[in-house]
Amino acid sequence: MKKKNVINNVVNGDLNYQQGISVDCVVFGFHDRMLKVLLSKFKFYHKWMLPVGFIMKDEDVDAAACRVMKKRTGLNDIYLHQFHVFGNTVRPNVKEHSDVMRRAGLVDGQHWISQRFISIGYYALVDYLKVNIRNLADEDLRWFSLNEIPMLYSDHNSIIEKALSTIRTQLRVMPMICYKLLPEKFPLSELRNIYETILGKELDRRNFQRKILSTGYVIQLDEIYKKPGLKPTSLFSFNREKCDEALSMT
Amino acid sequence: MKKKNVINNVVNGDLNYQQGISVDCVVFGFHDRMLKVLLSKFKFYHKWMLPVGFIMKDEDVDAAACRVMKKRTGLNDIYLHQFHVFGNTVRPNVKEHSDVMRRAGLVDGQHWISQRFISIGYYALVDYLKVNIRNLADEDLRWFSLNEIPMLYSDHNSIIEKALSTIRTQLRVMPMICYKLLPEKFPLSELRNIYETILGKELDRRNFQRKILSTGYVIQLDEIYKKPGLKPTSLFSFNREKCDEALSMT
Repeated sequence: MKKKNVINNVVNGDLNYQQGISVDCVVFGFHDRMLKVLLSKFKFYHKWMLPVGFIMKDEDVDAAACRVMKKRTGLNDIYLHQFHVFGNTVRPNVKEHSDVMRRAGLVDGQHWISQRFISIGYYALVDYLKVNIRNLADEDLRWFSLNEIPMLYSDHNSIIEKALSTIRTQLRVMPMICYKLLPEKFPLSELRNIYETILGKELDRRNFQRKILSTGYVIQLDEIYKKPGLKPTSLFSFNREKCDEALSMT
Repeated sequence: MKKKNVINNVVNGDLNYQQGISVDCVVFGFHDRMLKVLLSKFKFYHKWMLPVGFIMKDEDVDAAACRVMKKRTGLNDIYLHQFHVFGNTVRPNVKEHSDVMRRAGLVDGQHWISQRFISIGYYALVDYLKVNIRNLADEDLRWFSLNEIPMLYSDHNSIIEKALSTIRTQLRVMPMICYKLLPEKFPLSELRNIYETILGKELDRRNFQRKILSTGYVIQLDEIYKKPGLKPTSLFSFNREKCDEALSMT
């Protein structure tokens, strides 16, 4: 049956996965002061969840996360940041997990897919207008604003919370985690907007400029940005070399 | 044979582990401006490595890391921070891993312990004078200064590098990652010494005080510290409530 493709593939063993471990992806989409998160729903189950996937035996863990996201978005160059391992024995929620397995036609409680999972959490920050959600045979995908996220499968609500608190902390030292959201040159107000949306509060203009320049990741250019009706303002840019170095380190 | 206890226990199945996944612990010991790292060596193998362990089927991942460290140090309250998953297919180093297995008397290449491992990295920052290294039947343990770390088993040198770069980044936003190293009240110079040792450079006294107080995790007390021969200086303290909240979040 079509609707059971994913799980049947695993059960029948025609894909060769690392057992008991998965990747869960929290993709935050930003555009015009709005922050959203990408959620997935299997057609045979009623709850939304994060886009998830397994790791193939001959595949790096980071590559598995990229594959999981490429399948859903078509994007090759999403910057996925590994942020936490969710490894409590009570997850996934046993009742819900059994329910999904039953609906997918899998009743063998001994099969590894019915048992404990340790999940590696990844987050990404993208411009949601640039993402083309893929139509998948057995899965719906949709952007949700943060204030309209429903009760999700298992512990996925708390995984999103954890990703958000991680991003908020990282913004303070690594402004380049949002560099995919901006053009090469930008007025600093655009970067401040991203901060204000993610942090959920207004920031003082002068303090923001002082702090962001002190990180060394953002540099002020010798160019002026003019927009009709607005005061001319300086343009800024990420220090790509320093950013790439720091990102490859994380 | 005594020397093969650990691996034989796994192979014989008398301990029930999650397969293909391990925890690797990087314990940094600080004292009097010296930073060291705790390393382990199985008596039947010639290379040093990080203290490692498996995760039991009925055990949370964080609890496994605590058990691994308690076994080696006797300490219950080491604050272990999960910092990265090492999940490339080329690890552990196949040649070295086979060598360890062969020396331990395990030649079955099909057994999961001979195959790919995904490792969850944890770090801790402790006062090394307060750690009593345990004598284990099949394993030696020793503190190494950072500049005397030898070539370690598999990718463990780069795991230490990654832990160190993580700590250096985190110090900027979370000074409380080193609060186990200080008494309840301390002159700020003691905290600055820890920073200088970990960052490997001198810091400006006034800038340091301004920055550290701006995080809100450290507060200045209305008390003066007097030591014979030294200028009286203010005492400081961690804002425990705020620190605990932030640590439970990470």
